[in-house]
Amino acid sequence: MSDCIFCKIIEGSIPCTKVYEDEHVLAFMDIAPLSKGHTLLIPKQHVKDIFEMPEDVARNLYAAAPKIANAIKKAFNPQGMNTLNNNGALAGQTVFHYHLHFIPRYGEDDGYKVRWEAKKDEFTPEQLKALAEEIKENLNQ
Amino acid sequence: MSDCIFCKIIEGSIPCTKVYEDEHVLAFMDIAPLSKGHTLLIPKQHVKDIFEMPEDVARNLYAAAPKIANAIKKAFNPQGMNTLNNNGALAGQTVFHYHLHFIPRYGEDDGYKVRWEAKKDEFTPEQLKALAEEIKENLNQ
Ligand SMILES: [Zn+2]
Ligand SMILES: [Zn+2]
Repeated sequence: MSDCIFCKIIEGSIPCTKVYEDEHVLAFMDIAPLSKGHTLLIPKQHVKDIFEMPEDVARNLYAAAPKIANAIKKAFNPQGMNTLNNNGALAGQTVFHYHLHFIPRYGEDDGYKVRWEAKKDEFTPEQLKALAEEIKENLNQ
Repeated sequence: MSDCIFCKIIEGSIPCTKVYEDEHVLAFMDIAPLSKGHTLLIPKQHVKDIFEMPEDVARNLYAAAPKIANAIKKAFNPQGMNTLNNNGALAGQTVFHYHLHFIPRYGEDDGYKVRWEAKKDEFTPEQLKALAEEIKENLNQ
């Protein structure tokens, strides 16, 4: 995995501004922050995205999430926080080692802003049921 | 917690379109989907947000995330996927029982779109180091 910038950060061959580390995870400041305190949490095991993440890696990763969120909150007193993980270039992923963004929110001036446009008219309750069936059929494959 | 709509869904007094359930979590279709397959994952234990989430609840919640993401991907073949959790009204939280959004992405026409505006000029490497120190000081309180 020598071409992965986050693996290099974990190995120590590329520096980072570390916030937290344990046996399974590393958290450090995003070098291109969207707001004050923007932090990344990554698993030490190289996994490309959430699709490739083994269950035990997921478990150990998120175990650290509440304490990192709370430390950022205590440090900077934001009014809110988004935690966000992008999978695939179309979804905004640029480094292909899974990472979870912690984006503290202070108001309109944040670098992060979402267009949240529900498509209720396109999805009737019956259609949602049919979609759920398709997901369930694919759960245990 | 009788006023919490997600607790009522867990109890069964309000219906949902269920996708997955285990001892610790429930996943169901968002009734106001941003895209085809938009799904929510919630802990059965009522916690308001990521700040209030105990470590074991976090662990058991995210253990289910990769399998749900993969089932959605297999069902609908999106080009990408965002997983997103909003904490606080300013950050877009509308139901105050923690929930993780799985938002499959198909292209420009999605209901979800992000303004991702790095504030690199505002945060020098030295400032990032100082911010990291503030977070670290608040980690073990
Ligand atoms: Zn890597
Ligand atoms: Zn609840």
